[in-house]
Amino acid sequence: MEFEFVCRVCGKRYDGSVWVWRCASCGSTLSLKLRELPKLRLESLTCRPFNMWRYREVLPVKTVASLGEGCTPLVTREYMGVRVLYKLEHLNPTGSFKDRGSAITIAKALELSLSKISEDSSGNAGLSMAAYASAFGLRARIFVPKDAPEGKKRVIVAVGGEVVECPSRADANRRAMESEREGFTYVGHLWNPLYVHGTKTVVYEVFEELRDLPDTILVPTSSGTLLLGIVEGVKELMTMGLVKSRPRVIAVQTSEVCPLKNHVKAYGSFEGSSRLADGIRVTNPPRLKEMVDALKEFNGAVIVVNDNDIAKALKELVKMGFVVEPTSATALAALKYAIDYRIVDRGESVLLPLTGSGLKMLDKIVSVVSSR
Amino acid sequence: MEFEFVCRVCGKRYDGSVWVWRCASCGSTLSLKLRELPKLRLESLTCRPFNMWRYREVLPVKTVASLGEGCTPLVTREYMGVRVLYKLEHLNPTGSFKDRGSAITIAKALELSLSKISEDSSGNAGLSMAAYASAFGLRARIFVPKDAPEGKKRVIVAVGGEVVECPSRADANRRAMESEREGFTYVGHLWNPLYVHGTKTVVYEVFEELRDLPDTILVPTSSGTLLLGIVEGVKELMTMGLVKSRPRVIAVQTSEVCPLKNHVKAYGSFEGSSRLADGIRVTNPPRLKEMVDALKEFNGAVIVVNDNDIAKALKELVKMGFVVEPTSATALAALKYAIDYRIVDRGESVLLPLTGSGLKMLDKIVSVVSSR
Repeated sequence: MEFEFVCRVCGKRYDGSVWVWRCASCGSTLSLKLRELPKLRLESLTCRPFNMWRYREVLPVKTVASLGEGCTPLVTREYMGVRVLYKLEHLNPTGSFKDRGSAITIAKALELSLSKISEDSSGNAGLSMAAYASAFGLRARIFVPKDAPEGKKRVIVAVGGEVVECPSRADANRRAMESEREGFTYVGHLWNPLYVHGTKTVVYEVFEELRDLPDTILVPTSSGTLLLGIVEGVKELMTMGLVKSRPRVIAVQTSEVCPLKNHVKAYGSFEGSSRLADGIRVTNPPRLKEMVDALKEFNGAVIVVNDNDIAKALKELVKMGFVVEPTSATALAALKYAIDYRIVDRGESVLLPLTGSGLKMLDKIVSVVSSR
Repeated sequence: MEFEFVCRVCGKRYDGSVWVWRCASCGSTLSLKLRELPKLRLESLTCRPFNMWRYREVLPVKTVASLGEGCTPLVTREYMGVRVLYKLEHLNPTGSFKDRGSAITIAKALELSLSKISEDSSGNAGLSMAAYASAFGLRARIFVPKDAPEGKKRVIVAVGGEVVECPSRADANRRAMESEREGFTYVGHLWNPLYVHGTKTVVYEVFEELRDLPDTILVPTSSGTLLLGIVEGVKELMTMGLVKSRPRVIAVQTSEVCPLKNHVKAYGSFEGSSRLADGIRVTNPPRLKEMVDALKEFNGAVIVVNDNDIAKALKELVKMGFVVEPTSATALAALKYAIDYRIVDRGESVLLPLTGSGLKMLDKIVSVVSSR
């Protein structure tokens, strides 16, 4: 599959055969543009593997680097008159949707014969990239903020990654980008232009099962890798003529970290703490402008939730059998506001991705669920 | 789908429209026999959901009770010249293959309008049954040995189950069976004749992806729910004429708990501790005779492993990107013996189910992987 990297700000183009993650001219983020998009034929998918590589025609890599990511279950439940489609992304190999981005990144790294990669994260993205790198014989250096949970750092090491502690999350990002001086290739999810072509497969899977897309999609949003991947997937299906009506795409953020709030319509709880959602805490995402544009194009908004909302939603999810991390519960918390504000009406269908596993932090889950 | 329960010892038959889990005449375990087996057509599976219910024609329930179990990834890797097919059962909704058995059991409970069910387990089976029961509005009472980890008990409560502590594993089993006096229906996996019709779907999934079955299947074995489910699945596919050659089925047990050792050919490490494999510790499984017969029919054996073997195999699996519990590592440990003893030859294909998630016990995983 032919593609190029394009700067969204100055328009400069880069050939897809070399790794590039930032515009050399203006320093902006890059998008990966496919030169042509083959039309997906559902009947051709019979007997393909139960993972995201079943959509290989639309993935901009030839190599496969799979630990079984994708083809996560879609479970339908009614909630206050709304048909909710829970997409169980927490059942990915290392317990989060990030595995889709890591898989396609490591596949490309193998194609380009890279041997040392770097990423910055204190949570799911770091574990995921470390696991994929190690599994396919690459060295991975993960830059993490010093205050990240000890357990998470040790797991990154256990799967074969190297952990470098930094004073803050911002420092972790800076040092990861600078690690190129030491021969590492920076593939961090905040900037990586390939990542969304992994996460877009969520939409292909939903489409394959439903032969349609839901009315609304609610997406917990921090660096934007899931939101932008979902938008990419929807656009591709529309370009192929497979999907006619455009779903509404709504971002979910928290009272403490909601950079989208000043740029698009915002609803929800703007007061109170939101410590529980430790997976969506990027205050200054490089792709903020892209996210704003995507939300405007898809009739979107941002719904903001706090710890109180998250704890209630988490209890409900766990009792429904979905053992997810608190960050995942932001989406259900947001759905309640969406219904209250009539953003979502009864009888509509809503896609609700559950982004990360609660099995990694059972003590925390138990403590939230048992409280009050 | 019409079926009946049949006693393997005295031959007594029971109509499938009432729940029965033990022969009223002789007290033996029952098997569930399908009256007729429709032939599965692979082309009819296109666009069906990514879960075990895509094989609904061969499941003896009409109701669906799904949290997204099944359609777990199959990841192929070479290991010492053998083509190993890792079946990632740890990516099921509550983190183990038990979800397949729980799902079909709760579906049947809904059909029969049962409202209170009981199970005995200290681990994956208890969490799984509690989660499925709660998700579908049933009360679940889980009898656990007192010395089961506190964390596991609290998680069962968090998902909505009731925990009853008993002095020992054997007491937990006895009390669960006796709970019928208090109006609970005993659906425990040790006796439940429906359970294997959930776990058999593992084989259908492998067949759907490969259009064939591997030469050998290695199965960590305790109560026998996975071993007997796999054997049921293989037999059904052979009856349908879809599979011609019979795979070899080999059980994996541990130095401390290996009741199969005296009944079939046994290989491996019979000395040393095997505490790490806390998921396969049933010393006196009710279906032992069935397991022995199944192994004999499928040219089988038992391979016995100890903590030393398990720790080494777990390290390798985690570095390969499979974050599984130590019990799952018994299968890879056994594969090494199988290769050493020439039970499995170079060039052969081996199915290796990874039974349970390591995310539930990251501290333990980290400690084993970091040791020495």
